[in-house]
Amino acid sequence: MGEEVDYGKLAVSLARYYRGKISTFVRVPVRSAKDFAIWYTPGVAQVSKAISRDPNLSFELTWRWNTVAIITDGTRVLGLGNIGPEAAMAVMEGKALLFKYLGGVDAIPLPIAVKDVDKIVEFVKWVKPGFAGINLEDIESPKCFFLLDKLREELDIPVWHDDQQGTAGVTLAALINALKLTGRKLRGSKIAFVGAGAANIAIVRLLISAGADPGNFVVVDSKGILHPGRRDIEYLEKNNPWKYWIAMNTNREGRIGGIPEAVEGCDVLISASKPQPGLIRKEWVKKMAEDPIVFALANPDPEIWPWDAKEAGAKVVATGRSDFPNQVNNSLIFPSVFRGALDVRSKKITDGMVIEAAKELARYTEEKGLREDYIVPKMTDWEVYPRVAAATASKACSEGVARLKLSWEEEYNNAWKIISQTREILEILTRSNVIIVSPELEKIG
Amino acid sequence: MGEEVDYGKLAVSLARYYRGKISTFVRVPVRSAKDFAIWYTPGVAQVSKAISRDPNLSFELTWRWNTVAIITDGTRVLGLGNIGPEAAMAVMEGKALLFKYLGGVDAIPLPIAVKDVDKIVEFVKWVKPGFAGINLEDIESPKCFFLLDKLREELDIPVWHDDQQGTAGVTLAALINALKLTGRKLRGSKIAFVGAGAANIAIVRLLISAGADPGNFVVVDSKGILHPGRRDIEYLEKNNPWKYWIAMNTNREGRIGGIPEAVEGCDVLISASKPQPGLIRKEWVKKMAEDPIVFALANPDPEIWPWDAKEAGAKVVATGRSDFPNQVNNSLIFPSVFRGALDVRSKKITDGMVIEAAKELARYTEEKGLREDYIVPKMTDWEVYPRVAAATASKACSEGVARLKLSWEEEYNNAWKIISQTREILEILTRSNVIIVSPELEKIG
Repeated sequence: MGEEVDYGKLAVSLARYYRGKISTFVRVPVRSAKDFAIWYTPGVAQVSKAISRDPNLSFELTWRWNTVAIITDGTRVLGLGNIGPEAAMAVMEGKALLFKYLGGVDAIPLPIAVKDVDKIVEFVKWVKPGFAGINLEDIESPKCFFLLDKLREELDIPVWHDDQQGTAGVTLAALINALKLTGRKLRGSKIAFVGAGAANIAIVRLLISAGADPGNFVVVDSKGILHPGRRDIEYLEKNNPWKYWIAMNTNREGRIGGIPEAVEGCDVLISASKPQPGLIRKEWVKKMAEDPIVFALANPDPEIWPWDAKEAGAKVVATGRSDFPNQVNNSLIFPSVFRGALDVRSKKITDGMVIEAAKELARYTEEKGLREDYIVPKMTDWEVYPRVAAATASKACSEGVARLKLSWEEEYNNAWKIISQTREILEILTRSNVIIVSPELEKIG
Repeated sequence: MGEEVDYGKLAVSLARYYRGKISTFVRVPVRSAKDFAIWYTPGVAQVSKAISRDPNLSFELTWRWNTVAIITDGTRVLGLGNIGPEAAMAVMEGKALLFKYLGGVDAIPLPIAVKDVDKIVEFVKWVKPGFAGINLEDIESPKCFFLLDKLREELDIPVWHDDQQGTAGVTLAALINALKLTGRKLRGSKIAFVGAGAANIAIVRLLISAGADPGNFVVVDSKGILHPGRRDIEYLEKNNPWKYWIAMNTNREGRIGGIPEAVEGCDVLISASKPQPGLIRKEWVKKMAEDPIVFALANPDPEIWPWDAKEAGAKVVATGRSDFPNQVNNSLIFPSVFRGALDVRSKKITDGMVIEAAKELARYTEEKGLREDYIVPKMTDWEVYPRVAAATASKACSEGVARLKLSWEEEYNNAWKIISQTREILEILTRSNVIIVSPELEKIG
């Protein structure tokens, strides 16, 4: 499976060759300099005047309607930690590429040199007039929880933290189908969580919104199972109210201990901790309920290799890896959730919208033929993206957060058209040799 | 000359049709989802690691090298005044279009909801890691002077305020040729300035850098000629040190009064005040030196109509209008000054670089055939842009502010290639009907 390709080395070499993964481009015809009288002065003055009378017109008369800021302080980039905003740019650009390619969204990387949480809130409010949505990215926890909650509350445009909602949404999709395959219901299932960072805390919160019973959850962090008697409970109350809430409201059985104690007898294990195969041991999986579900989501390596989990009796296994089956991949959700939210000019991305997007991902997979090794779509299941956009947009309309009303079909067609156009343009430019396939890229085929 | 076309109405209608003037686009091939292993995870981690070891690599391994932030607080948009950041977006987008079309630069509009000068400085420092250059735009004076001076001093990437340096640069180019046509030298010429806002203060400063004698300048603002005895001199010292400096260091003859007193006997009149034809009267021009030079730069209407200035004896007349000869047009300079500065990864755009760019504009015009009605290039003189880029880059190298060394020819070829590519892509996409000429646009031909 292409194991011989050193993707890291190739990525550096091709980054140097292409000098970036995205660019801006012209969206209007320019037949001669005369056309600038329309696109620029004197014509543009009337456009500005119209918007100054009604600022909402900036969504209709400029590129704002489709433009999302990808904001990071570079404090938790991939598994690399606090590597700073300059280094984060490479990842943000990749994200912008995915936004465009999979969702037709104009996303602008804004890696920033400021880490203070209140200042980041201020920054986001300052840039808001130029954007229709905000995508927070690779920001350390618990800062990211505070930021997301605060900005979702105060801003009237969608705010999303992909490491929270994106991961939670696609995990929910995978879980819906895994539960179906093993004859379980979300509400009755016992779920162990390994890791209590951005991903798992967001997953816990979203599963509860989707109807799960927090009493059935057992959450382990690096210091063991979360429960009201933890020594650091006061510290948590003060510094990480989200983790504190979990300690106070999950774990009805009052389990204490580490990962094995958390996992024992559970129906589901969701691990989002660190890339360390063997962190979860086979013998622990063996002590789970019958036909258990194991999601080992750390990147690039899962906390237990899928074949080990299977050998230990796991019925359904998912990871974050593209070279294994069942990749729990945020790219399945964030581009089209934004597509849908932007198209109905939603004020928010609510939990309800994320859940509806997850259900649509699950439904699509089921229609294509649910199997133990196919519980979520593949990234190349192109038809799923406009469906997720339509599901998200419909939910925004029914929840009353959308400024525009579009039916499911209207948004489906709309999203289909916008998303297809990116691939069409890319194909035209590749055919015309404007975008060149470098010799190195050619070689790996 | 197309007087029947209502550009304002057309601009609003076409803004609605095209929903923006720019977009992002993909710069690398995507042959299948597999390629995302290079552009995104896992490959990208190595790119980020490399940059975290040496943040300067962000200029080589991401799109940063070619990316400029267009930052405005919306306080002085065109002639419209303080209309806010949402409304400013329409203009910033037009600017981004010009950046791309004329300079091949990826420019990102960032209209911001903050007006305090120190906070804007902070904002610019926060976004800096994602950009190779900063273009300030449509910010009220005197704030814009403070901002530009402060940011030029403190940042190690080019900072430019187009309403200052852009206008000053292209005015200098026009002036060089107008002086040549009328047998004058910059140093010996008496110059009257009407208006003391961003444009004229910047022109005064740049002309002095270029060798003019400030003692020969007479500058008039709305309260009359600037001189050390002005009643508001203390107020100026405190609130507008730039205007204060002018009051103290120009006007050797100690003139007092208004526009007619300022203009009398002068060789050159440079007006950058308000769009009010008749503000400068014919009889005042008649009292200037023989064969005077009149630049009436207010937009959209000049302070004196060109035919009136000519009738009153002006030998060379320039305005800001595209439908009159000798348009003093910033678009001739900012895209290619940035092109050159970015390509040698300059730390600054120095006055020397702006002067060199202006001289190149003047030289090009002279080579094409200097005439009273052709003292600056037209916007469609495509060959001039790479020349200005090369002149700017060379000067950056010789002044020691460039991080990369490129010869004039190297940068000329480089800039030519980058700038041509935009037009090539636009042509391909128009031919392929991706960019559509709307019926309304078709009609005006």
